Amino acid sequence: MFVAMNRFRVQPGQGDAFERIWRERDSYLAGVPGFVQFMLLRGDEGEYISHSTWESRAAFDAWTESDAFRRGHAQGSLMGVLAGPPVIGMYDALMVQPATSAAS
Amino acid sequence: MFVAMNRFRVQPGQGDAFERIWRERDSYLAGVPGFVQFMLLRGDEGEYISHSTWESRAAFDAWTESDAFRRGHAQGSLMGVLAGPPVIGMYDALMVQPATSAAS
Repeated sequence: MFVAMNRFRVQPGQGDAFERIWRERDSYLAGVPGFVQFMLLRGDEGEYISHSTWESRAAFDAWTESDAFRRGHAQGSLMGVLAGPPVIGMYDALMVQPATSAAS
Repeated sequence: MFVAMNRFRVQPGQGDAFERIWRERDSYLAGVPGFVQFMLLRGDEGEYISHSTWESRAAFDAWTESDAFRRGHAQGSLMGVLAGPPVIGMYDALMVQPATSAAS
């Protein structure tokens, strides 16, 4: 499994606007090969993370080169509500323990 | 859903040691009420994240006050391999899209 996170810092008072932009976007992720899950996460003090999980880094890389990716990222800019550029992080999952696994 | 992430920066050359410590730990998470998933994530340049997903922030909070939490965190220190203190981040999931959802 592979996780990509894009960290956003939102300007003071722009949280509601940021969240509304995400809710009104089309996702274009359903049916993409290797896509597992998307979450929009809200932390403290204007911090948000767009968090996507993939079966593999190769599946993520293929998506970033796809028409679905281009359509999803051509829906208007978040820049008006951000306090700075987003910061991407990419992670390989070394261990995965679902709730259903036996106790170790 | 709720996500807790603990970010670790590992000293140069200590990645294998850090990963071995995690693999040899007992997790104590199976069967904890509200626990959904644990992942150990590896990023670039000595960055790791211990990443846990919960049904709610209340389930996470209850776990941090449990005997299982105390047992899990009494298994020896990571401090010998870290380049600094871990940084905790806690996040509410505002949107969740699984791979099985219909296209929007």
